[in-house]
Amino acid sequence: MTLKLYVDRMSQPSRAILIFCKVNALPFEEVRIDISKRQHRSPAFKEINPMGQVPAIADGRFKLFESHAILSYLACAFPGIPDHWYPADLTTRAKIHSILDWHHSNLRRGSMGFVLNSTLAPALGLPLNPQAAKEAEKVLSESLSCIESVWLKGNAKFLLGNFRPSIADLSLVCEIMQIEVVDDKDRERLLGPHPIILQWVDNVKSATKPHFDEVHEIVFKVKERLRNRVASTTNDTTDLKMKPNPKL
Amino acid sequence: MTLKLYVDRMSQPSRAILIFCKVNALPFEEVRIDISKRQHRSPAFKEINPMGQVPAIADGRFKLFESHAILSYLACAFPGIPDHWYPADLTTRAKIHSILDWHHSNLRRGSMGFVLNSTLAPALGLPLNPQAAKEAEKVLSESLSCIESVWLKGNAKFLLGNFRPSIADLSLVCEIMQIEVVDDKDRERLLGPHPIILQWVDNVKSATKPHFDEVHEIVFKVKERLRNRVASTTNDTTDLKMKPNPKL
Repeated sequence: MTLKLYVDRMSQPSRAILIFCKVNALPFEEVRIDISKRQHRSPAFKEINPMGQVPAIADGRFKLFESHAILSYLACAFPGIPDHWYPADLTTRAKIHSILDWHHSNLRRGSMGFVLNSTLAPALGLPLNPQAAKEAEKVLSESLSCIESVWLKGNAKFLLGNFRPSIADLSLVCEIMQIEVVDDKDRERLLGPHPIILQWVDNVKSATKPHFDEVHEIVFKVKERLRNRVASTTNDTTDLKMKPNPKL
Repeated sequence: MTLKLYVDRMSQPSRAILIFCKVNALPFEEVRIDISKRQHRSPAFKEINPMGQVPAIADGRFKLFESHAILSYLACAFPGIPDHWYPADLTTRAKIHSILDWHHSNLRRGSMGFVLNSTLAPALGLPLNPQAAKEAEKVLSESLSCIESVWLKGNAKFLLGNFRPSIADLSLVCEIMQIEVVDDKDRERLLGPHPIILQWVDNVKSATKPHFDEVHEIVFKVKERLRNRVASTTNDTTDLKMKPNPKL
């Protein structure tokens, strides 16, 4: 039975898994779960992931959710995947787990919070929330500085001073790519002060081409669509702008 | 060189690591990093963990932070640790990773947010924040329901229907134990509707005795101290009560 990936390419961990499978030429079927249509909350999808979130996979009868768990499973389950993605060496693997664990409450919390509350919320039927975006921006900026000073110090090409990327590089860089969807001046304010981060994103992009760009196409399409929407809203005589919701 | 554990027993992931080491009779030295004195932010401790958080370990020259990464490392690095803690079987291990990854943004976010904002903040020099506590309570309650319906269904003794605990049981149960520190009526409201969770906590406690209770003694001492503090504040003629800070 083919490996099934239940994903929405607008979800950054979904993209990490897609890129991993494509780069390593794993045989898989991509099953799109459209978050904007709330397909991730459908009873049918909850049979795959009872938590109602993408990504999830089904490898035969074995089902799994949470992107980091999926990436480490795939790296072990399929033969021939180069060791650098998820090194067998105990201490190197432990360091990769450490980065991935840190990611949840730091980079991901900041990036998701900022992108959702500053930009994507209306596309999901939610109001924007500038205050939550501001708080998330602080977490995001601190996280980017931490990555630079701890795991990319000494102009390392990849995290931990490695010469080849791991699943941690892929997961974190896909998260950072989500920032591309926001307004250009916000993106510049967030990423401009971090040239080491930008170089690292380029390194991961190069190491996974052409799949990285192909899987990320949707991010730039959505950005374009949002820009057009803002432009048409600004030109409209009625005020269609969403109001911030203090509850978010 | 002895394994060093840099911990504060008031930190729930610190307790998980301590219990794991004690149950498995690992040789270790406990180095207390007092969070209430901000020792986790000291330059000396940042040499161990540049992120300035407990727990962290040093195993010879190898340093590691993030409790889940530490638990899986310890389970592999020391010979003779029973397989049930971190099973070698690929799919079983993947399911344990999935629970641990889910934990970060769900149970931990809810529990930490509630306990800090409803109870512990003043002990750390921060104000209470009832609104943040309310929002965290929602995440916490949903997380407890998810654990019951997904991983403890069918009256399983441990997560995933296992007969012996894993590092996921230990990590999540230590998180839930943090709720013991809050006011009794809050605890009852939070945990009362979840008898399956309470039975599971007891199962983990029994499987790890006497270490579980010994390592958790501090939680009940702090609860007592907080209760006395509230009582003396209530009786005092000056208003010593902390005001909520909307920024937290």
